[in-house]
Amino acid sequence: MDTLSVQRSHGGTQHVVGHASRATGTPMTLGVFVPPGDAPAGGWPAVTFLSGLTCTHANVVEKGEYRAAAAELGLVVIAPDTSPRGPDVPDRDDIAIGQGASFYLDATRKPWAAMFHVEQYVVDELPEMVGELVPLDPARQGVTGHSMGGHGALTLALRHPGRWRSVSAIAPICAPTECSWGRNAFAAYLGDDEAQWARHDACRLIAGGARPSELPAELLVEQGEADPFLHDQLKPDRLEAACAAAGVALTLNRHAGYDHSYFFVSTVLGGHLRWHAERLG
Amino acid sequence: MDTLSVQRSHGGTQHVVGHASRATGTPMTLGVFVPPGDAPAGGWPAVTFLSGLTCTHANVVEKGEYRAAAAELGLVVIAPDTSPRGPDVPDRDDIAIGQGASFYLDATRKPWAAMFHVEQYVVDELPEMVGELVPLDPARQGVTGHSMGGHGALTLALRHPGRWRSVSAIAPICAPTECSWGRNAFAAYLGDDEAQWARHDACRLIAGGARPSELPAELLVEQGEADPFLHDQLKPDRLEAACAAAGVALTLNRHAGYDHSYFFVSTVLGGHLRWHAERLG
Repeated sequence: MDTLSVQRSHGGTQHVVGHASRATGTPMTLGVFVPPGDAPAGGWPAVTFLSGLTCTHANVVEKGEYRAAAAELGLVVIAPDTSPRGPDVPDRDDIAIGQGASFYLDATRKPWAAMFHVEQYVVDELPEMVGELVPLDPARQGVTGHSMGGHGALTLALRHPGRWRSVSAIAPICAPTECSWGRNAFAAYLGDDEAQWARHDACRLIAGGARPSELPAELLVEQGEADPFLHDQLKPDRLEAACAAAGVALTLNRHAGYDHSYFFVSTVLGGHLRWHAERLG
Repeated sequence: MDTLSVQRSHGGTQHVVGHASRATGTPMTLGVFVPPGDAPAGGWPAVTFLSGLTCTHANVVEKGEYRAAAAELGLVVIAPDTSPRGPDVPDRDDIAIGQGASFYLDATRKPWAAMFHVEQYVVDELPEMVGELVPLDPARQGVTGHSMGGHGALTLALRHPGRWRSVSAIAPICAPTECSWGRNAFAAYLGDDEAQWARHDACRLIAGGARPSELPAELLVEQGEADPFLHDQLKPDRLEAACAAAGVALTLNRHAGYDHSYFFVSTVLGGHLRWHAERLG
């Protein structure tokens, strides 16, 4: 693992590191914020932040305003990239397909299947790589994300129960099989069989009985009401209905006047870290 | 004045506006954060943040992490650009001269004298333009800045006593007549007469009796000790000596391990706003 930068901030240390990924077969870059002080005996509690369409690790590292809260709460914050990237990585002139748009799944269709294994990357390889930098407590891990990354947080937690103890999302794509971003991406990555798509749709996973952990299932979602993607792409009402039908405790906070940008993410992310810290102990 | 964007954040509203400037003869862009609630009867207290070399308004707007504190404290935050810009604006292939590098003075030499009137812009035109957007209380104005903008905050406050009631700086260029950035810029903008340069050097202004206001002069400066520009360009020890000799109360906080980036600025800027708010009432 290569250190690309190490910068002191809010009493802790913001690392940006790069490594060759076995999941994607490409170089991957990520941010790791380490709070001040010594690691707890069992390793650090950590929250992984999955970013949205087009983003790299840098968007949340530069604009997420999470370090003050993470330093105070003693949380590591892990910020991976959203996909493999580079001149040899397939791409398409569509915001929702290709580089910056993995949808946090393992693609099965050409040309994506060779490198777009971002579910495997986030679930298995990422904690291992971060563990080379700082000790992590595997029992005290949380996940959150923004937009496509909110979809990633919800679906990866539902598909890998017990992997994360706390799960939240900011303006997530809640029902990707029902919006153009998700449908286009799933068709490209998974082919035409919509039964495969349902395995990566938070609402359908919940309807099918999936839960993020053995603990009482509990989700926190934040949504801006002036978000231009609210009705066509994000559809938090679908998540609300799926959770209500399945008896999953969802706290869905709607924020009047807020849009889809990091001006919104930065407003709520510190509070999300506090919510995770309370559950991670 | 044109609204370029309006985004809700941390309970307040982040505006980015553009206008034709009479000081520079060019379009200028700036950020204005307005805290939640109604304006006080006498207008808002405000802090103007002057950015460093190369920066536009966007650097601090995106990476400064000031909105949570400004919203809580009820402060407007004004973030102008660092110079005129555009294809018709003179420039030079030197980080410290030309676009993004005004040094917050009114240039007297060609080709800069035509458009580089950024002292006039910040002191006179900026509050007038912001006043078209929200009412400002002229008696409750503070100024701060980073690097070249810290130089700007100190020198403009010293050159215009009473214009700002509170003055601080983050990693400022303290003695521009003694560092290459400042000497190169002053030679280009002001010519070879170093007596002219001294009028834009915080240490020399203080030694010459200048004070920022009728109130007991008091300055707050923050400096990272791992800042790569500390010894060659910034020289806070010169400011410390000048203030000690002149009886100006300087609080100079040195921060072990911090560099020159916004990872440092964002760590201390909220605290600076708190310091200003205490003085602006």
